[in-house]
Amino acid sequence: MDADSLWQDLQTIRETQPLVHNIANYVTMNFAANALLALGASPVMAHASGEVAAMVELADALVINIGTLDDPWLAAMEQAMQTARQLGKPIALDPVGAGATPYRTLAVRRLLSTAKPAVIRGNASEILAVAAEASHTRGVDSTQAPETAIAAAQRLCQMLGSTVAITGAVDYILQGDRLTTGKNGHPLMTKVTGMGCISTALIGAFLAIQPDAPLRAATHAVSLVGIAGEIAAENACGPGSLQSHFLDTLYAMTGDLIAQRLKLSELA
Amino acid sequence: MDADSLWQDLQTIRETQPLVHNIANYVTMNFAANALLALGASPVMAHASGEVAAMVELADALVINIGTLDDPWLAAMEQAMQTARQLGKPIALDPVGAGATPYRTLAVRRLLSTAKPAVIRGNASEILAVAAEASHTRGVDSTQAPETAIAAAQRLCQMLGSTVAITGAVDYILQGDRLTTGKNGHPLMTKVTGMGCISTALIGAFLAIQPDAPLRAATHAVSLVGIAGEIAAENACGPGSLQSHFLDTLYAMTGDLIAQRLKLSELA
Amino acid sequence: MDADSLWQDLQTIRETQPLVHNIANYVTMNFAANALLALGASPVMAHASGEVAAMVELADALVINIGTLDDPWLAAMEQAMQTARQLGKPIALDPVGAGATPYRTLAVRRLLSTAKPAVIRGNASEILAVAAEASHTRGVDSTQAPETAIAAAQRLCQMLGSTVAITGAVDYILQGDRLTTGKNGHPLMTKVTGMGCISTALIGAFLAIQPDAPLRAATHAVSLVGIAGEIAAENACGPGSLQSHFLDTLYAMTGDLIAQRLKLSELA
Repeated sequence: MDADSLWQDLQTIRETQPLVHNIANYVTMNFAANALLALGASPVMAHASGEVAAMVELADALVINIGTLDDPWLAAMEQAMQTARQLGKPIALDPVGAGATPYRTLAVRRLLSTAKPAVIRGNASEILAVAAEASHTRGVDSTQAPETAIAAAQRLCQMLGSTVAITGAVDYILQGDRLTTGKNGHPLMTKVTGMGCISTALIGAFLAIQPDAPLRAATHAVSLVGIAGEIAAENACGPGSLQSHFLDTLYAMTGDLIAQRLKLSELA
Repeated sequence: MDADSLWQDLQTIRETQPLVHNIANYVTMNFAANALLALGASPVMAHASGEVAAMVELADALVINIGTLDDPWLAAMEQAMQTARQLGKPIALDPVGAGATPYRTLAVRRLLSTAKPAVIRGNASEILAVAAEASHTRGVDSTQAPETAIAAAQRLCQMLGSTVAITGAVDYILQGDRLTTGKNGHPLMTKVTGMGCISTALIGAFLAIQPDAPLRAATHAVSLVGIAGEIAAENACGPGSLQSHFLDTLYAMTGDLIAQRLKLSELA
Repeated sequence: MDADSLWQDLQTIRETQPLVHNIANYVTMNFAANALLALGASPVMAHASGEVAAMVELADALVINIGTLDDPWLAAMEQAMQTARQLGKPIALDPVGAGATPYRTLAVRRLLSTAKPAVIRGNASEILAVAAEASHTRGVDSTQAPETAIAAAQRLCQMLGSTVAITGAVDYILQGDRLTTGKNGHPLMTKVTGMGCISTALIGAFLAIQPDAPLRAATHAVSLVGIAGEIAAENACGPGSLQSHFLDTLYAMTGDLIAQRLKLSELA
């Protein structure tokens, strides 16, 4: 994975406009739809029990984001993931706030027992919570160091076979024995709600065109969000203008910008 | 309908600030509320079964948008449309994604059997799906040519008596034997989620002040969105800034700008 | 309360990043989350009956906004307010549209009988509606003069012991016998949806760090929104750019700007 492969996949998305089905959260749904459009993909948001299966059938990838979940939405997420598993469609899972409440922990357990996501993306606390849950233990601490999150992510990879992306000041993307690190991004991005959700939504778009290469898809998506975010932040006056610059930058992204900016290394 | 009548109706909206009741979707609800405010209208979003009837009573027009519908929201939409029919309040219907899933097709069937919308607005695929459904047939193909959508829209006009607006690169607005075409707009508008929803929301505002002239209301709203969108796109760096420029442009719209820009012709 | 105390509390929020739990509305949830982030606080949105109590336990303050309420959300709001009362966490209540429909009036009655909010913030019509309801009378008129709203707010203060903020062209904040008035703000702010919701969300953040000083928290939050809004409006081309300028301005707020701008007076 390098600037060439990222640029190539971005061009494929722009040409094929894959349909990405999102069952996401109320807070960032608009931003996620606009980010997918700016990327070149086709977003669809649908959660009714009467149509999620049919929508997954139409879609090229499924993105599940538990940000504002409740029981009916959780049931829809399970139904969608079950359909995706049966049809072999790739799933990106965003376990927003995992570990914060027992309800979220249980929700993630139910989702992981329904279907194996191709990619799970979260911050360190969330990945720690998901990994602890997957091994049926308790006691997640969001203050633990990133190193601990890497170990947890590796455990998660081994147990589920999923690619795991830990995003933050440095991004770690793991699959099997492989570990890539990305260093794109800007601190101001943490002051805009949903930047993590956008990463997961874009992972869905990259999975749609590379369903058999989840490490590649996750690495490309996370890096692209970082590059667009840092360019946008450098031109923004604050978090309000960052959001609109981010969409403009993503839409206008070129191979040259990617080549100049990409900070990616494969550690293992 | 011309620049003068559009400017006149826009001024009336700014002066009277009609209350537009929206039962809309999670993705574009914020954008729709801001567009109605920028236009000069008063938006209200309310969907609880315990209050939709009372809210329709207060409102000057009802906008129904099925973007992220589910069973409870569909029931609320039916209840609201029934109340609007009884009170003679105009309804604008946006059949988002009609034809994509059987659930949406059935939902539109239920809504159309509840009350006749003054205006139905959708893209070609959606109008084809709604027309097919209204005649109890199947097999909608979103790849069919615009000409086919015009024929379907004419059939829909005849069956329901509604005005039908097909929006896209060219906009067609039909009522009875009349057909107007609008050529305002910009391709970048397709990269912002909800531009179609905004057209329907604004149709609601124009219906509120011209309840007996749905062709006029739909034509004015669709043209105004196109004019504001093309001016905004010319000044935008991408889809992110387009969204905020669109609201600024709509808010600052003048009769001169409308007169310079409007591309409208009545074909029949 | 003056520029110094406002600046001091803003710095405390930036340093301690209090967790503000919002059960809010679909229309302005994204804007509220971004405003809390721009302020320096940590927003969380969660409404599932299975987790609201656990989330209130984690949070430093609870914000309840009934903008797009329905029965399940109302139940979640009651559950959250009950937990907040038991744990002594401060509550800010935004009775959006109170008085518009009987459903909203009843909802506010139920919420007020569940727990006493530290602060209630609304426009004149809403405060009149809430005050009338609290005294079990009827007949709220949104066209009544601001003076009447002040009297109603004073009655509400006496009955509930809550601080009451009436926001509008002039802001009135009342507690017991005290009355402060704020004159910051700009008319263009009324053309952006959710500016009132943002005031209430920010009251939540100021309450989180001053739980025993609700008059101070409400006055600081309302003034800060007014200052950031008027600076943003002076630099905006319309309501679209106002929204993003507002977030940028809030994020970059300084003690000097507050000192130059603050228009606050204590009348009683």
